[in-house]
Amino acid sequence: MAAAKNAFYAQSGGVTAVINASACGVIETARAHTEQIGKVYAGRNGIIGALTEELIDTSQESAEAIALLRSTPAGAFGSCRYKLKSLDANRQEYERLIAVFKAHDIGYFFYNGGGDSADTCFKVSQLAQSMGYPIQAIHVPKTVDNDLPITDCCPGFGSVAKYVAVSALEASFDVRSMARTSTKVFVLEVMGRHAGWIAAAGGLIEDQGIPVVVLFPEVPFDEQKFIARVDALVKQHGYCTVVVSEGCHHPDGTFLAEQGSKDAFGHAQLGGAAPVVAGIVKRALGYKFHWAVADYLQRAARHIASRTDVQQAYEVGAAAVRLALAGHNAVMPTIERVSDAPYQYRIGMAPLSEVANVEKFMPRDFITDDGFGITEACKRYLRPLIQGEDPPQFRDGLPVYATLKNLAVPPKLPAFALR
Amino acid sequence: MAAAKNAFYAQSGGVTAVINASACGVIETARAHTEQIGKVYAGRNGIIGALTEELIDTSQESAEAIALLRSTPAGAFGSCRYKLKSLDANRQEYERLIAVFKAHDIGYFFYNGGGDSADTCFKVSQLAQSMGYPIQAIHVPKTVDNDLPITDCCPGFGSVAKYVAVSALEASFDVRSMARTSTKVFVLEVMGRHAGWIAAAGGLIEDQGIPVVVLFPEVPFDEQKFIARVDALVKQHGYCTVVVSEGCHHPDGTFLAEQGSKDAFGHAQLGGAAPVVAGIVKRALGYKFHWAVADYLQRAARHIASRTDVQQAYEVGAAAVRLALAGHNAVMPTIERVSDAPYQYRIGMAPLSEVANVEKFMPRDFITDDGFGITEACKRYLRPLIQGEDPPQFRDGLPVYATLKNLAVPPKLPAFALR
Repeated sequence: MAAAKNAFYAQSGGVTAVINASACGVIETARAHTEQIGKVYAGRNGIIGALTEELIDTSQESAEAIALLRSTPAGAFGSCRYKLKSLDANRQEYERLIAVFKAHDIGYFFYNGGGDSADTCFKVSQLAQSMGYPIQAIHVPKTVDNDLPITDCCPGFGSVAKYVAVSALEASFDVRSMARTSTKVFVLEVMGRHAGWIAAAGGLIEDQGIPVVVLFPEVPFDEQKFIARVDALVKQHGYCTVVVSEGCHHPDGTFLAEQGSKDAFGHAQLGGAAPVVAGIVKRALGYKFHWAVADYLQRAARHIASRTDVQQAYEVGAAAVRLALAGHNAVMPTIERVSDAPYQYRIGMAPLSEVANVEKFMPRDFITDDGFGITEACKRYLRPLIQGEDPPQFRDGLPVYATLKNLAVPPKLPAFALR
Repeated sequence: MAAAKNAFYAQSGGVTAVINASACGVIETARAHTEQIGKVYAGRNGIIGALTEELIDTSQESAEAIALLRSTPAGAFGSCRYKLKSLDANRQEYERLIAVFKAHDIGYFFYNGGGDSADTCFKVSQLAQSMGYPIQAIHVPKTVDNDLPITDCCPGFGSVAKYVAVSALEASFDVRSMARTSTKVFVLEVMGRHAGWIAAAGGLIEDQGIPVVVLFPEVPFDEQKFIARVDALVKQHGYCTVVVSEGCHHPDGTFLAEQGSKDAFGHAQLGGAAPVVAGIVKRALGYKFHWAVADYLQRAARHIASRTDVQQAYEVGAAAVRLALAGHNAVMPTIERVSDAPYQYRIGMAPLSEVANVEKFMPRDFITDDGFGITEACKRYLRPLIQGEDPPQFRDGLPVYATLKNLAVPPKLPAFALR
């Protein structure tokens, strides 16, 4: 029997409230199979750590510290925004990766990210094969944008959806209280530059009796129709809540957030979509407004994570290791929905050739005909994903989150300059 | 023995995550003393409901509905921003209040709000006395701004402080993950136009190893010193978090949020302090940034309320009724701190003559000498206030919050036009 190969794990792109739960799933499952997997090395700051040979030795972390990753938001080993170019354009980066893997006896590559990293993962697998140093490359799905194909949902999304629905509900109660003499329109800006999945979660509060307007990137912004809709809701309910995706744009493609506004010094103003939408309401209708921009709070909010999401994040991490142990390569564990209510799912598998570079948008039948809300089909899809709570432990009023030692593996190769 | 008089309860000003817990304390305690208190009427939309004789009959609500108020954010009966003028300037509004109270046999006035409402409460008590219809007027403290005098803290503040500390901690973990190639500075804007108590709570995350800069309304903004501080922290830690109070202002008194910026149409831009601060960092240092504006989310976030705060909010409501039953008038229950660690407090009492129109600012020795952080004395003060969690129940992934029936009491008087 061949000696156990080491594994390499890296976090890629924007982090989430549950990406560390996937790391926990990978590491705990690998530790349970020492006959086949040696050490798990993590990339310091993602794939950059592999290129620069900055590897973290996760075997130096206690079982307790690794277990705590399950309830720790963000990327415990660091992540990065660094997209490898095509093989033709940048073959030497891929070759460097494989050289580092070879130097550290790495036979398993677990890459935890979205569409871009699925593509990188696929290419590493192909090139390693052709270079005579086969590596089992498994992609672990993660993205708050929920835009990976084949899998029913993406770990990270359910928790941001829960954050948005809970926050929009709570703020709507606030506005409802104040509307008689004060704020009548509350605007909440959420993430989602291309796909409206996150904004859609705001539509769930309609079932709680809240008048809500959702602005999707998929629906070009119709200012007059929007104004009329807000006015009708305020006249009927006394107030309304608007959930606007950062990717909401005018018919000409300009983002609402890029109004070309300038500050007093003539510098381009660093705007958000929420203040722009609030301004439109104010000018057209005169209603008092408040606006919030959730930004990183929404994807970091482990304290209000969805239990379903945490569980799935852990499971795809664990499944990635099991797929590798079963001999699979260039695949990604997926979440296959079996039923909506009661919610049932199982872990499946997709070939990376079908995952890489495919974006999944909201189906048109998930958005109401007027473009300002979500349909019952969308609600059936979303509801299970925000189910359940999984609060972290608290000490002295604050959540207990892991900060790892992140000890370096001594490098063995010459330095490599990043482009 | 005289027949039981009815009570009137109203919510005033900006609502909080726990003002309904005070309502719960008032109503549950009143219901336990039917020999002295008849019905509890609530003002629809606060004191306006008393002026317009829009009273809500809380006796129509079930015990379960009232109990659920304890875990429901915002104002269940509606609140308002409507400050009664001085007695001289607007005597007829005070006289109308007393006429309504008389018409509905109201002998107890419980007013749940901040400094302005303490003043109104005091005046109603005085005038009622002089008009020969004595009313026991008890103020129930509430304000996220934490700026009432005498009481050690104000119900509503502990929960927003916990929200800010938890959110800043989570977002800081996110930035720390991304800083190698992406965001290095995260700016979170929080409430507090005059006092920096809420921003101060962001300073608590320093003890978790997070490099954080706090910008207070109490400290005029020194742009060069700020830039130098941010740069030093980023150079040392790779990233930093800035918590900026909406009331932060330049030495000339101009708010950071009012940069006089215009949008593409020449309209004044509805800015926040956070994007302005982020822009300053970007221009001076070139660091990639993200910013968030928490706005209503922070004061509505019942899901992450402080258990200490919820408990105190309930207790001041209950104590207000007990004070009334004991014959007190023109007073406010207070929270008296007995010790920091272990945290112990008791409910005290302050005369409204000493509460009305007095604002409590951060003591200078709660802010570090450089003006960018909080001292150990401040941390000792803040830590107990965010202690403990008291999550609501959840159903289908969302919190279960009360929406009351809010049935009207038939009016008995002619209509009254609000100014």
